[in-house]
Amino acid sequence: MSLAQALLQGDRRALSRALTWVENATPEGEELLQALFPHTGRAHLVGITGPPGVGKSTLVNQLARYYRKDHTPPKTVAIVAVDPTSPFTGGALLGDRIRMRDLAGDPGVFIRSMASRGAVGGLAWATGRVAQVLDAAGFDLIFIETVGTGQAEVDIARLAHTVVVVQAPGLGDEVQALKAGILEIADILVVNKADRPGAAEMARTLAQWLPKVEGEGEEEPSWQPPILLTTALRGQGIPEVARALEAHRAFLQRTGLWQARERDRLEAEIRECLREALWQAWEVRGGRERLEAMVQAVLQRKMAPQDAVRRLLETTSAQP
Amino acid sequence: MSLAQALLQGDRRALSRALTWVENATPEGEELLQALFPHTGRAHLVGITGPPGVGKSTLVNQLARYYRKDHTPPKTVAIVAVDPTSPFTGGALLGDRIRMRDLAGDPGVFIRSMASRGAVGGLAWATGRVAQVLDAAGFDLIFIETVGTGQAEVDIARLAHTVVVVQAPGLGDEVQALKAGILEIADILVVNKADRPGAAEMARTLAQWLPKVEGEGEEEPSWQPPILLTTALRGQGIPEVARALEAHRAFLQRTGLWQARERDRLEAEIRECLREALWQAWEVRGGRERLEAMVQAVLQRKMAPQDAVRRLLETTSAQP
Repeated sequence: MSLAQALLQGDRRALSRALTWVENATPEGEELLQALFPHTGRAHLVGITGPPGVGKSTLVNQLARYYRKDHTPPKTVAIVAVDPTSPFTGGALLGDRIRMRDLAGDPGVFIRSMASRGAVGGLAWATGRVAQVLDAAGFDLIFIETVGTGQAEVDIARLAHTVVVVQAPGLGDEVQALKAGILEIADILVVNKADRPGAAEMARTLAQWLPKVEGEGEEEPSWQPPILLTTALRGQGIPEVARALEAHRAFLQRTGLWQARERDRLEAEIRECLREALWQAWEVRGGRERLEAMVQAVLQRKMAPQDAVRRLLETTSAQP
Repeated sequence: MSLAQALLQGDRRALSRALTWVENATPEGEELLQALFPHTGRAHLVGITGPPGVGKSTLVNQLARYYRKDHTPPKTVAIVAVDPTSPFTGGALLGDRIRMRDLAGDPGVFIRSMASRGAVGGLAWATGRVAQVLDAAGFDLIFIETVGTGQAEVDIARLAHTVVVVQAPGLGDEVQALKAGILEIADILVVNKADRPGAAEMARTLAQWLPKVEGEGEEEPSWQPPILLTTALRGQGIPEVARALEAHRAFLQRTGLWQARERDRLEAEIRECLREALWQAWEVRGGRERLEAMVQAVLQRKMAPQDAVRRLLETTSAQP
């Protein structure tokens, strides 16, 4: 039996191996993605983002527990924990995440940690492919949990169907204020650690900052992001978050946005692959050697980078 | 007189207009960069990064004041304040930075704020070009100040000759711990707010975390990042930071690393331009229409993205 077949039949060891292939972008990983592709497109991809210390991991763990233990029927859950703030040292901190003891051994929950490898766009790219594999493996919900850092939020907004932005009171004003921009990508806002002072006030402030939706316009369907209070550590507010996720999924499907987002994602993936392929073809046709020479000339200020680009395009055949 | 000439002769209004062109990537901006390029390569590019709230802006302001008032001979200083954590709302927060009143009207200091526009790699790209213009305009030192977020640090390390990582005591353990990876790109470490409890301890901790340099090996010259204590708000420790910057510059020039870093930077710029040009040529040759059709087929799961890429490369001529 092939790895793809084993994975599609629910073999979790096959899944782990497949993810490693795909993360490392091996040729086997590429073939596997191709084989799995017809089985993708069903999972609900949920991005969970916010500053460090707001309790994202706890919230995701509790959501997983809710979907396994309290939801009827139970849903299967995959968690991808992404750490874009550690470009060099790897994801040890997220690797240490609290395991859910009462879910140990449940094949309906799967956790994977990923750390950035320092490549521009590399982590978002790998995360998208990991999500594809988990989608093919049949998980109903895929949570992509990432520390909020400008770029991470842009990437997660491109990848996920639903973006949950998590905040918490008492983490320092400046950290909070700097993250104000992320409100614009939030489909659901969660104020976690709601048992702390300042939670209700924070929810009110967020409500003021949120762009107001005027009711569904004629041109474009609109969604008013709910603001939910949770105390994830004690499991409070979790069913409400799950209901909001379901409502957002229904909204996306009803309005056609579900498919529109998927289309954008697939087009971006194809574009990126094409760009890389065009570049590689150019390098192979002798571009690499000529580039070396041009860089020397630019370094000596004999020509500007723009001149180098123009000459390289003129003199190196673009024919594959 | 052309804008480039005016800029090279020290006209600050010409400089401001040139930066706007270049930031917005207008055709005039591209031409200008080309004209200015022979005049670049002299400035010392210094990246200043660290978490929110450590006092990066104050430190940079004080360094500027030092170079203008206390350094012999005075050096000219440009400050580029980059805010990668606000991909959507723009750089209002950094725009509010405290102006240096006693330097008002001094043409030897120039401040520019930049905010991310949400494009992948877009901010790093624009920052590099802004730095080129400031370099041509003759500034001795260009400080690129950015909030520390994984990707921002990678980008700044690629762009700058010297990377200063700023920390401060009392900002919360988790925030600090998550940033441990940035030690690996630090050329100089600054513990600011050194009048607060915990500063000396933080410096000791950082010293333990720092990879130790064994003395200059035979293969590769090595630099041991100094750890400096500052209280920037009161100007304490500023001359020591300036001396460390000078020592690092001397180290880079002595070892040939100065030119090696510049070479890498220029090569990356040329590569990026080439990739974009190859892609645009492919689109113009009819690729765009065929791509549309393929995306539809992929969306319907009739083929995998990998198949679409292969077919698009086969059937669309790569000849310009």
